[in-house]
Amino acid sequence: MPNWKDESQKISQPDAAWAQKARQRLNEQTRPQGSLGLLEGILERLSSIQKKERLDISKKRILIFAADHGVTEEGVSLYPSDVTHAMVMNFLSGGATINALARHLKAEVRVIDMGVAQDFQNAPDLIHRKIARGTRNMLKEPAMTPEELEQAIQTGWELAEEAFRDGVQILALGEMGIGNTTAASAMIAALTGVPAPLVTGRGTGLDENLRLHKAGVIGQALKRHHPLLGDPLKILQCVGGYEIAAMTGAVLGAARYEVPVLIDGWIVSAAALAAVEWNAKSLEYLFFAHESAEQGHRYFFERFDVRPILDLSMRLGEASGAALALNVLDAAVHIYNEVATFAEAGVSKRVR
Amino acid sequence: MPNWKDESQKISQPDAAWAQKARQRLNEQTRPQGSLGLLEGILERLSSIQKKERLDISKKRILIFAADHGVTEEGVSLYPSDVTHAMVMNFLSGGATINALARHLKAEVRVIDMGVAQDFQNAPDLIHRKIARGTRNMLKEPAMTPEELEQAIQTGWELAEEAFRDGVQILALGEMGIGNTTAASAMIAALTGVPAPLVTGRGTGLDENLRLHKAGVIGQALKRHHPLLGDPLKILQCVGGYEIAAMTGAVLGAARYEVPVLIDGWIVSAAALAAVEWNAKSLEYLFFAHESAEQGHRYFFERFDVRPILDLSMRLGEASGAALALNVLDAAVHIYNEVATFAEAGVSKRVR
Repeated sequence: MPNWKDESQKISQPDAAWAQKARQRLNEQTRPQGSLGLLEGILERLSSIQKKERLDISKKRILIFAADHGVTEEGVSLYPSDVTHAMVMNFLSGGATINALARHLKAEVRVIDMGVAQDFQNAPDLIHRKIARGTRNMLKEPAMTPEELEQAIQTGWELAEEAFRDGVQILALGEMGIGNTTAASAMIAALTGVPAPLVTGRGTGLDENLRLHKAGVIGQALKRHHPLLGDPLKILQCVGGYEIAAMTGAVLGAARYEVPVLIDGWIVSAAALAAVEWNAKSLEYLFFAHESAEQGHRYFFERFDVRPILDLSMRLGEASGAALALNVLDAAVHIYNEVATFAEAGVSKRVR
Repeated sequence: MPNWKDESQKISQPDAAWAQKARQRLNEQTRPQGSLGLLEGILERLSSIQKKERLDISKKRILIFAADHGVTEEGVSLYPSDVTHAMVMNFLSGGATINALARHLKAEVRVIDMGVAQDFQNAPDLIHRKIARGTRNMLKEPAMTPEELEQAIQTGWELAEEAFRDGVQILALGEMGIGNTTAASAMIAALTGVPAPLVTGRGTGLDENLRLHKAGVIGQALKRHHPLLGDPLKILQCVGGYEIAAMTGAVLGAARYEVPVLIDGWIVSAAALAAVEWNAKSLEYLFFAHESAEQGHRYFFERFDVRPILDLSMRLGEASGAALALNVLDAAVHIYNEVATFAEAGVSKRVR
């Protein structure tokens, strides 16, 4: 299996000529020019990636990466760590929100244990890639070793490559990990320079006091690791998580194999930001599903100067926002493929 | 057929006990409380309307009301009036954006000629309810007579009642009418008190000079009809349109028969605002699909203190935003009906 670090240098630009073709097609369809708003840019970009007359995102795969976080020792979450394990079991038995959404979408769901604290024995349908039983506490030491980081990124890369080989036409990334809004907030603070108290949100429902405690933990962790925070990989290693690093790898792999990727919420955004810092070309393959309720998310979107597809104040994770946005993308693709042109329909274009 | 004016007094409040039941159900599902954001309030409200353990919006009907506008004489649109006729033919032959969206949603589309300037002869599948060949020019006289207004509202009411009798579980309203952003803007300015230059947008793509011209036309029309602008029906009559008045009737009828209604964009919003001014209880049955690119739309949402489901800067009409939002509602209903409870899944609830 090729190594992600070498291969991720080969990410190519999507094809601008196909974006131009898509623009022409959209302009010829029986609608005022530009009237689909944000969807038009999305369709142009999909076209530049798929390079086909008709777009097709019918084969969808949702990857949910799960892991635990040592920083939960610091009381940064309302839920105990064993909820990660229980929710993974829930995903596998089809009882979670993402399962309902995936059935409706006719999308595959694959769940990967990147580092959940509990054992799953031989749980069928789970992809077993456990690196360790949770990361270390970022407040005391780097969350993972450099070797663990490599292993996590490589795992995500390989899953993206496998999706490509399986003919997956759009990939959605999601996660489950008690404590991972803390890791993601620390990463985004480090990568954007926005101070921890601004970037830190309420996670699964902290009150203002606990939010400030969490921001304090993040601020201390960043201070501790400051000398190491020169590059995105060091940031991932010191304050990230196994599931986050795997998603960084999956973003890079998907971009390398030209599979469009739907980015879920806050935590996947942190993974995507690290990927884009590593290779800016990967941004062209990303579609941002939603602005979450996490208060720092808007800094993220400002940084990229993009607008997400949805803005529903959700804060669930597990690819739920990505799955909802996939419904909108599916509809947009139907428009692109099916709507008649002005000539076909005998409708006059503008007169003035 | 009962008269809309009497019957619309009988609109009832949705059932708060069912909203409460829905809240409990959402809280018991394996997710952090409140983590579905805006969708939770929507699901509570759907439950209070449907009053059932499981929600069901699988039988969907999209009504598209078409009419022309006398005010187009004033050069307020980029397109000639005959585009209304041509687009109706396009809807009937399945070539428009809404048709692609409806096929994907498995929703019925019905198109109603409320007052298109051209004849349709006996076009099959068209619902023939033409009141006149376009409204009068609001700058010179009221857009319609009081009798025409009654007829338009009654028509919309009856179509909503028919949908109820047919077992339709959710209704989406849309429109087609060159010049109708001018009518809608005039109505919303009159109903909200926001000045015409603020409330008037670019319609199908006016530049800033033409937008200011359009705002000037609206300002003059409102000045002319000022003594009559005491109530929503007078506003509809003086500066509205046949298709807009029909949608006001459809909103009231749907509320009366407890059918949830998805409001598309700017023009349907004007119709909905008149309905709510007529009977405030109708608001409880409305779901706002999207914030359009029309710059005045935010005043509308501020007035109601609601957030729409989507915000994609679309400006197409023909129920396209409503259809896109229906995809999100469908997904939300799947979540509501299918997700396991904490007890079923053996997941622990919060500990702190």
